[in-house]
Amino acid sequence: MSDNTDLKLFFEPRGIALVGARHSPGFGYGIPLTLKEQGWGGRLFLVNPRGGELHGFPLYPTLADVPGPVDLAVVIVPAAQVPRVMEEVGERGIRHVVLESAGFAEVGEEGRALQQRVWEVAERYGIRVIGPNCVGLVNTANLLTTVEILPESLVPGNVSIIAQSGVFGNILLDMLYQYSLYISKAVTLGNRMDVDENEVLDYLHRDTDTRVIMMYLEGARNGRLLKETLRRVARDKPVLVLKSGRTREGRSATASHTGSMSGEDRLYDAAFEQSGAMRMDSLESLVESARVFATQPLPRGNRLGIVTGSGSLGVMATDAAVSSGLVVEPLSREAVEKVKRDAPAFINIRNPLDLGPTAIFQTGLRALLEDPDIDMVLGITIIPYAVVKEMAPLGITPAVWFGDIAAVREEYPDKPLVVCVVGNAGFVEEIRRISGPRVPVFVSPEPAARALASLHTHARRLGAG
Amino acid sequence: MSDNTDLKLFFEPRGIALVGARHSPGFGYGIPLTLKEQGWGGRLFLVNPRGGELHGFPLYPTLADVPGPVDLAVVIVPAAQVPRVMEEVGERGIRHVVLESAGFAEVGEEGRALQQRVWEVAERYGIRVIGPNCVGLVNTANLLTTVEILPESLVPGNVSIIAQSGVFGNILLDMLYQYSLYISKAVTLGNRMDVDENEVLDYLHRDTDTRVIMMYLEGARNGRLLKETLRRVARDKPVLVLKSGRTREGRSATASHTGSMSGEDRLYDAAFEQSGAMRMDSLESLVESARVFATQPLPRGNRLGIVTGSGSLGVMATDAAVSSGLVVEPLSREAVEKVKRDAPAFINIRNPLDLGPTAIFQTGLRALLEDPDIDMVLGITIIPYAVVKEMAPLGITPAVWFGDIAAVREEYPDKPLVVCVVGNAGFVEEIRRISGPRVPVFVSPEPAARALASLHTHARRLGAG
Repeated sequence: MSDNTDLKLFFEPRGIALVGARHSPGFGYGIPLTLKEQGWGGRLFLVNPRGGELHGFPLYPTLADVPGPVDLAVVIVPAAQVPRVMEEVGERGIRHVVLESAGFAEVGEEGRALQQRVWEVAERYGIRVIGPNCVGLVNTANLLTTVEILPESLVPGNVSIIAQSGVFGNILLDMLYQYSLYISKAVTLGNRMDVDENEVLDYLHRDTDTRVIMMYLEGARNGRLLKETLRRVARDKPVLVLKSGRTREGRSATASHTGSMSGEDRLYDAAFEQSGAMRMDSLESLVESARVFATQPLPRGNRLGIVTGSGSLGVMATDAAVSSGLVVEPLSREAVEKVKRDAPAFINIRNPLDLGPTAIFQTGLRALLEDPDIDMVLGITIIPYAVVKEMAPLGITPAVWFGDIAAVREEYPDKPLVVCVVGNAGFVEEIRRISGPRVPVFVSPEPAARALASLHTHARRLGAG
Repeated sequence: MSDNTDLKLFFEPRGIALVGARHSPGFGYGIPLTLKEQGWGGRLFLVNPRGGELHGFPLYPTLADVPGPVDLAVVIVPAAQVPRVMEEVGERGIRHVVLESAGFAEVGEEGRALQQRVWEVAERYGIRVIGPNCVGLVNTANLLTTVEILPESLVPGNVSIIAQSGVFGNILLDMLYQYSLYISKAVTLGNRMDVDENEVLDYLHRDTDTRVIMMYLEGARNGRLLKETLRRVARDKPVLVLKSGRTREGRSATASHTGSMSGEDRLYDAAFEQSGAMRMDSLESLVESARVFATQPLPRGNRLGIVTGSGSLGVMATDAAVSSGLVVEPLSREAVEKVKRDAPAFINIRNPLDLGPTAIFQTGLRALLEDPDIDMVLGITIIPYAVVKEMAPLGITPAVWFGDIAAVREEYPDKPLVVCVVGNAGFVEEIRRISGPRVPVFVSPEPAARALASLHTHARRLGAG
């Protein structure tokens, strides 16, 4: 559709016109407020035929009345009015539209016809469209958002999101910061009348702020094209895909939800594997893996070293790691010697390295990070909480017990390092603090091991691990 | 060992003697303090040969000096002193010992010999021993704890714990309340010189406060006996077992950790399945399933009904449910009619029932709970958080949006009901509140579906589902 192939103006418009601003609760009320709070006031123009004022902005009766440079229109009027609004958009010389309105192809025959009419207008003017039936996009670099989200979700990060579903994309934005996952760009595709996952993948491929791409799909718009795109993108940036409809029942629910036929699941499996994308089998593993991909270097092999304060949790991590394709092999002689220097005699120096309630966690952690026979490290920071509380008045805080894990991360930047802590919430918080922003902290051993395994799988596919 | 086969006095002693009380940080300092805080002051007697005073208690030089009735001795002296202390225990007429000291069979040949000497003393006097190398037990009914834990972990509940490892048992106690799991009894077994998992299982089988048993094992003391015991117990109470050492590497780490040989994993698989115990493959699933077993009735079949505010999350839940052995089948005609009465025309009334951003969640939830073709229900309560915030000033809180889920639980007590919410932490908290203590709230769809599936598997094995 037109030669207007760069999505840049979607993400970096000089000005935004919002058509469908209104005084009652809903997108037309909340989005302008969010944009105002994020500093877009001077570059935001609201349209409502009844005129008046909203959030201190004048309401322009039509797009033609809007002054100033506008590169992006956000359209949230009832579906039936969209063809007319698109004409106005075209006349006003705007070439990028986020079309949030629902009631198109997803609701049946009549909606499909309406969507076709909108498409024809867009085609005639060369307008690029994201949507309909979506919540548009986010760019944390300039605090642009066409989604009502909280400021916490706009803290800039290196993870970008492509979500087919608007609601689900919104929910992801609501929750990811709680897992210390911060966003660069996010796009919800909706019905994909025009812009689809392939174009966004290519855009994010070029985007220097994006390190990892998380993608939620119910069905590809074009399976073969997606495979080609992924092959190009995943070579440089990890693409973590949650493709739902793994089961027949799930596919049937998908068809009802977005009208997209999701096809045979094993074809997707093959396509993702061959193209180098990482398929995630659950929302949990999507989030867990993204945390590790966003912060850790690629491992050079599959040899995991585990240092733990609890033998049991070390065994659980070992089980999960080995089941996911990692190996837990003996430590090098050098590593054993390093630990032996500090360790009480009762410590059995092996992998997993169970240090029990000794205070030599840092010794163990460094020995594994320096060990040439170890490719990645999992630190399990365990002390019963009553002991934490009792030792604190003596100055023996978790930071003393486990050392400055964030600093260790900086000292050994070449190996993946993740932490697992199980216990009281206060203790978990303290471990998060000493681990810093570049060490993901998991609250159960298995997700930590699985996420490291997926990092290794990615490295292996690239020929790096 | 003796005919003293009831473990009752371990859990309900008239008085406790703690041998190894001390002024420096550690169990000997922290446990008496914890017991004092829990109201055991008048029934607690501390022993330390140097005399003096601790936490306001007199320190008796020997057990012989301790006045008052004592049924339980908690021993936390260095390993070498334990044989002598056991003689004192025997002479004092105490027949129950929690032996927390480490340095026995778990540290090699010499320790094994020492443990044998302790065993001989116990045998001679007919003393029952939990341990060594453990942290003993908890009974929330009388606030007895030989573990240093926080008051939050002593809120009475209906879940009981058997853990082979002391540290891990302690950690479980530290963390479970955060998942709304509350304890009746907990026992950490350690080296199992005497009391083992079989006796504790039988005790918890009879214990009217215990509804669900969570067990962490690295290896059975006697595989055949365990299978027989489980067959007896699991018929009446669900036993959720996390048996680590699923992989060869995990088993090897286990051997190093507790000295127990954990044997071929597939034998355990078979034993658990044949005996009706539920094997959990991770710490996460142990906790997730316990939450559902502790609060939900057994389903009569495997037909899951899903009502959701997000189509995507409905599809993910469907995928996970079907992959775990549940079915997601069409709703009955009656259920469809009930929903149709309230639903806007664009709602596709099927299973999963995607209600989008309508306010008829309660209608959907009740229709599924009343549907004779549905055996269990998953409610996915989703609204973007910005909408939550925007609607709140209009009085439309999550409680209005989703209704009183806790009340619905009471109204339809015969079907399992769990809730999944994904989103902002504040919203999650609000959903927890309206769901009440008898509806587990999950923060991802897959664990919710998996936990319901394990509930159904248990029911099926009992011939109930």
